[in-house]
Amino acid sequence: MGIEPSLSRLSLNQITTDLWSLQEAVEGCVRAEIPWISIWRHKIQEIGLAESKRIVQDSGLKVSSICRGGMFPAATASEREKRLDDNKRAVEEAAELGTDTLVLVCGPAPDRDIATARKWVEEGIEKLVPFAKSHGVKLGIEPLHPMYAADRSVIVTLGQANQMAQNYAPTEVGVVVDVFHVWWDPELYEQIKQASGRILGFHVSDWVVPMPDMFKGRGMMGDGVIEIRRIREAAEAAGYTGPIEVEIINQAIWDRPGDDVLKEIKTSYVEHV
Amino acid sequence: MGIEPSLSRLSLNQITTDLWSLQEAVEGCVRAEIPWISIWRHKIQEIGLAESKRIVQDSGLKVSSICRGGMFPAATASEREKRLDDNKRAVEEAAELGTDTLVLVCGPAPDRDIATARKWVEEGIEKLVPFAKSHGVKLGIEPLHPMYAADRSVIVTLGQANQMAQNYAPTEVGVVVDVFHVWWDPELYEQIKQASGRILGFHVSDWVVPMPDMFKGRGMMGDGVIEIRRIREAAEAAGYTGPIEVEIINQAIWDRPGDDVLKEIKTSYVEHV
Repeated sequence: MGIEPSLSRLSLNQITTDLWSLQEAVEGCVRAEIPWISIWRHKIQEIGLAESKRIVQDSGLKVSSICRGGMFPAATASEREKRLDDNKRAVEEAAELGTDTLVLVCGPAPDRDIATARKWVEEGIEKLVPFAKSHGVKLGIEPLHPMYAADRSVIVTLGQANQMAQNYAPTEVGVVVDVFHVWWDPELYEQIKQASGRILGFHVSDWVVPMPDMFKGRGMMGDGVIEIRRIREAAEAAGYTGPIEVEIINQAIWDRPGDDVLKEIKTSYVEHV
Repeated sequence: MGIEPSLSRLSLNQITTDLWSLQEAVEGCVRAEIPWISIWRHKIQEIGLAESKRIVQDSGLKVSSICRGGMFPAATASEREKRLDDNKRAVEEAAELGTDTLVLVCGPAPDRDIATARKWVEEGIEKLVPFAKSHGVKLGIEPLHPMYAADRSVIVTLGQANQMAQNYAPTEVGVVVDVFHVWWDPELYEQIKQASGRILGFHVSDWVVPMPDMFKGRGMMGDGVIEIRRIREAAEAAGYTGPIEVEIINQAIWDRPGDDVLKEIKTSYVEHV
């Protein structure tokens, strides 16, 4: 095993403590001395953007990313325009909250035609880039695990994400590597190398067996089968030294006191990330 | 939509009616005029190989494949030898029951080291080929969906399966295409083309949303999002005109009367495969 990452890179992805409001999550990070936070849009909506901004700024926390834009494919052109407008709001929120990274969960197909849905993702990104650029926000394409191909994202491999990102400058579009989504991929290390200079985020959790739930079943780092450290070191070799988000979607973890979860995250991070 | 496949290619993969014994499954196929059956080894074990052979021969059904060999990776060399021995028994059973195809579900890693496990799969196949060849049995590497990478198979893409198969003659090792396992893959059609002359089986079911269970949650053809006909036609363009196995692992379908299930399979097959 290599060397553990610095705690100065640790970021709480807010979905990990989904029962907390933004205020509570921020206070939790400050108490736990976690320097970064990734903010979800449904938490911003609860209190509004101005209040969210005030809370974050008062805390001194840094914002690693906003989750999430994307969801580009839709059956009609007018609905796709609406999705684009929503992505522009997400860009504005990212800029306002002081992060340069908007994570894209690209969305499922509205029907069985996955190839066309993939084209709509490309189109959506193409239309969004100029707006994002003018706000100083980069788009991070996050490939999701293929088990979400039908309901969350038609972009399911790092290879696909790289291919789309490479149409743009690294200051415009990059990729987000989440170990839960990519660990199974036989081309993983080759594609991480391909992503050199374009990795905009790195997310950790673990794949536990048996998985309690397809959506809310991610594990704490170290509890599963993923070679997290090896993947993290590969991302570093590809130039990524930014924040490392702990993103665990898990009902049992949500049900625990947030402070306890943050404490365990720090221990697991040092040992397994 | 293209033209439906001939009913003369329809095969019942026995796991679809898992509550039926081999005798019951065979009788069900005869009643439903389904000409092929794929036999699972746990059903052979219930009554022995000789009795299984008698049942199949008396029925006049053709056997499309035996499910399954594989499960190669194990922590110790002696355990891997045991797995190899078990694979040899599977080859003998395939030969005895009159099919030339043994489906390989390659197995999970015994620990976090998925790369080594993949090498053990390659080694296992290499050791098994001469024995299989001498029995007139081909090995069909079946990539499983990446959501089974931790507990069932480290071989998760058709690209991987093709790469391994290409070390051998098409009469020795090929691939099995199961739409449930491969539909999400951005390289699917390219890899089906790559597999030309080497496709040893074609399995159908559907991916339903939401999925009731990660293992026992497959849907009836037409109930989900998979472009089954498009994939089947691609397999045909790559030279595969053999039996089409309906393999649906689903508790709710198991709980229904088998004859009803077979009736629905025939309708769905004509409409959606």
